[in-house]
Amino acid sequence: MSNATVQAVNPATGKAHETSYEVSSPKQIRHAAEAAGRAFGPFSAMQARGRAAFLRAIADELESVRDEIVALVPRETALPAARAGGELGRTMGQLRMFADLIEEGSWVDARIERAKPDREPLPKPDVRSMLIPLGPVAVFGASNFPLAFSVAGGDTASALAAGCPVVAVAHWAHPGTSQVVANTILRAADKTGMPDGVFSLLQGTGQQVGVPLVKHPAIRAVGFTGSRRGGLALADVAAARPEPIPVFAEMSSINPVVLLPGAASGRAAAIAKGLAGSVTLGAGQFCTNPGLVFVPQDTADAFAKELSAALADVKGGTALHRGIAESFAASVAARTGRDDLEIVVGAAGSDSAGGQDDGGASMAPFVFKTTLEAFAADSRLAEEAFGPATTLVTYTSLDALADVIRRMEGQLTGTIHYDESDRPLSETLVSALRSRVGRLLLNSFPTGVEVCSAMVHGGPYPATSDGRETAVGTAAIFRWTRRFCWQDMVEEALPLELRDANPLGIARRMDGKMT
Amino acid sequence: MSNATVQAVNPATGKAHETSYEVSSPKQIRHAAEAAGRAFGPFSAMQARGRAAFLRAIADELESVRDEIVALVPRETALPAARAGGELGRTMGQLRMFADLIEEGSWVDARIERAKPDREPLPKPDVRSMLIPLGPVAVFGASNFPLAFSVAGGDTASALAAGCPVVAVAHWAHPGTSQVVANTILRAADKTGMPDGVFSLLQGTGQQVGVPLVKHPAIRAVGFTGSRRGGLALADVAAARPEPIPVFAEMSSINPVVLLPGAASGRAAAIAKGLAGSVTLGAGQFCTNPGLVFVPQDTADAFAKELSAALADVKGGTALHRGIAESFAASVAARTGRDDLEIVVGAAGSDSAGGQDDGGASMAPFVFKTTLEAFAADSRLAEEAFGPATTLVTYTSLDALADVIRRMEGQLTGTIHYDESDRPLSETLVSALRSRVGRLLLNSFPTGVEVCSAMVHGGPYPATSDGRETAVGTAAIFRWTRRFCWQDMVEEALPLELRDANPLGIARRMDGKMT
Repeated sequence: MSNATVQAVNPATGKAHETSYEVSSPKQIRHAAEAAGRAFGPFSAMQARGRAAFLRAIADELESVRDEIVALVPRETALPAARAGGELGRTMGQLRMFADLIEEGSWVDARIERAKPDREPLPKPDVRSMLIPLGPVAVFGASNFPLAFSVAGGDTASALAAGCPVVAVAHWAHPGTSQVVANTILRAADKTGMPDGVFSLLQGTGQQVGVPLVKHPAIRAVGFTGSRRGGLALADVAAARPEPIPVFAEMSSINPVVLLPGAASGRAAAIAKGLAGSVTLGAGQFCTNPGLVFVPQDTADAFAKELSAALADVKGGTALHRGIAESFAASVAARTGRDDLEIVVGAAGSDSAGGQDDGGASMAPFVFKTTLEAFAADSRLAEEAFGPATTLVTYTSLDALADVIRRMEGQLTGTIHYDESDRPLSETLVSALRSRVGRLLLNSFPTGVEVCSAMVHGGPYPATSDGRETAVGTAAIFRWTRRFCWQDMVEEALPLELRDANPLGIARRMDGKMT
Repeated sequence: MSNATVQAVNPATGKAHETSYEVSSPKQIRHAAEAAGRAFGPFSAMQARGRAAFLRAIADELESVRDEIVALVPRETALPAARAGGELGRTMGQLRMFADLIEEGSWVDARIERAKPDREPLPKPDVRSMLIPLGPVAVFGASNFPLAFSVAGGDTASALAAGCPVVAVAHWAHPGTSQVVANTILRAADKTGMPDGVFSLLQGTGQQVGVPLVKHPAIRAVGFTGSRRGGLALADVAAARPEPIPVFAEMSSINPVVLLPGAASGRAAAIAKGLAGSVTLGAGQFCTNPGLVFVPQDTADAFAKELSAALADVKGGTALHRGIAESFAASVAARTGRDDLEIVVGAAGSDSAGGQDDGGASMAPFVFKTTLEAFAADSRLAEEAFGPATTLVTYTSLDALADVIRRMEGQLTGTIHYDESDRPLSETLVSALRSRVGRLLLNSFPTGVEVCSAMVHGGPYPATSDGRETAVGTAAIFRWTRRFCWQDMVEEALPLELRDANPLGIARRMDGKMT
């Protein structure tokens, strides 16, 4: 990649694609931000059904280029075509879900307190409030979800739904997919009469275009999915602005899994099979990948054997780009040759972790094993190794385990496997996990993230830069809003959601009570 | 004030009080934070009616020391006894409002998506989420609201309601009031059986106790009301922690007021009278003080005359502490002797701004007058002068005014005064103000902040450090929460709010629909 162009590489072959994309110039970055700023007024003032039509039109346009996308994604990311097709469906589903949400309309949390002119000692004013959009949002897509968390992914869908124009930055590893998807959004905007500038795509790296975009005063919030280094760099830029803006960066997580004694002895084979699938799904390139498994010491060897067996037939996979494979190989190397860490599955130095014959991007599964004491003593063992790897950590005391969990960094998920014999579920363990994660699973695996109203995909820092919010599900829309209040306002200047007659028929809070 | 004690000064006399308070030691700070950390588990696990009883007991205890508080507040703050009594009532009202809110229970935004084991291609898991408390909160009270925004004020009430223990830092200017109020909370905690450490009070300045408190890992969020310098200093400390925490700092605001032509000519006397009252309320020491009034040029002189008349009988008042009077005098001095700024009311250099005869803390009202062009050219004219001052800014074009407003810093409030002849209300003006404020008022004055479900007291940075939230009203509770998700969890480990039978009878979202 030169300074002036972005050129994707096929990770499976190491060969560059024929098409290259110009890196957006400072002028193009400025124009995109300014156009988004101009679009904000009309776009946010539009009735929700107009924005809903736009979102649905994007989904329809995406369907119309399904073949092109399903062919292109594997060439840019090494993800299989079936995965591309599935992820495309999820992306369309998200767009339609947000269309339904805003068309129904109650999500704005409308609150009305009626005036009491005769109240003593002071009259009560008429006070009405609801959530309004923040303004243009910069969206940075993920390498590992080229559709569902990229240009038309959850961040874009939720921001547009809220009434925020979007300037998306294509991930440099899949510029072609990004461009095809961006074109569907632009066609949908055109067909549904959206204001110019409601959506723009920029090409280039975070340093090239991301930093100047986040610095631009027209940008009012940032959505990011990717590495901790990248997310924190953008958060620093956003915090240093004359007017700082919120950054919702979804970053690293190793997603601890705890096997309770009964489950570990009674269901070892089944858990090992599920875990093997979860660890290696998408070549381990999921932010919800279970990278840490706490196993009772007395059943740890047996469980390790089951996990080895379950992984015996799993080939690993090709990394999304060579940088991930190199980083994974480095993580494996750093865990090799340590007295306190056993390699249960995998062979360091083999060509399976960063070989040359296939573009250098293949990654084979690794399982490490250590003790709770060793894990607690070395924070490097809690660092994410992005790829198909997990570490078994043996424990003898649930209290000691809970203590270690309480001292861990924030995580997206935590999982407990238990059996009838483990009942009642240890509140000490549950509360320790709850303090460090955004989603707690029981007898399940964290890699599936159901897109629905109740999902929380987010967790305490550094899993996300703002652990109070979710990036998946309908509640993701709240990230792009602020609460706004009108006092003694004339009806005609109020949004429809707050007018007396409730013309949209939404659920509202009147004088404190839901109606 | 020595390093080791806090001693209040009577602002009206300049004399130190007899009682002094020890500055909390590093050990006491650590103990308070650790005790709050230990209390968090049992306090947050408690049923809401337990916490509601605690909040109501605090209100009752406050009532029982009404006489003491009403006598003490004026001596520490120079606020009149009637104001102290009124503010005490508001403080009790807030506590009871949050008790009602959590006892009703629906505020947690419970969301349930039921499992569909037979769904193709993948089964749907059972997913449930709601808002849970963040953890112990550090609360920094305001000098200008020694009760309603201090030790037992809105931040403490909303944090306790959410399930967060509180470590409050007494404002150094009213340590005695803080101690009396803290004692009521401790008695209430004792009477209602709250866990040890659910509340602590620390004495000392932000530098002495605030910084180490915010650095302590047990503290999970910060509530602050005060100066921009103080709020941003704590925000920097919070952001530099290994695990950054959210800071909700309510800081400076000059609260622009726009008089439209019809209103300015038709209702000049009435508006001037209301404005004079709003500008000088509490000696101008309100964060919602209207420090900026945009007036049509052709009626500006007439309006200035009306405002002068309305202020002729207003004496100003005594500052909460000498630092405020000195800072106000400096702001006045900086606005004196400028070619582009006329002094309409007030006389610089007079003893009315920082005289010596009364402890040096008196402040007389000032009104300045300038043009939109001069205002736009010098950002110092948009700086807050905390005290009874406002600046009239003359405009000739509503479009030019809207442009200037769009470039202003974030504000808590914006106000428009209009008449029938100004209809329809300019959308250009409304949208400019909306982009820069958290609350928009019509034909009203911003200094009253109604405590209710629909209030928003917060605005774009730097009015608040996080402009998405409110510090007043029931929605203030959301600041201390994060969304948390349980997947495939056994009933017994779910909070009552998410159990199938809905034992609390709260409103919930089932499979995306409100029930």
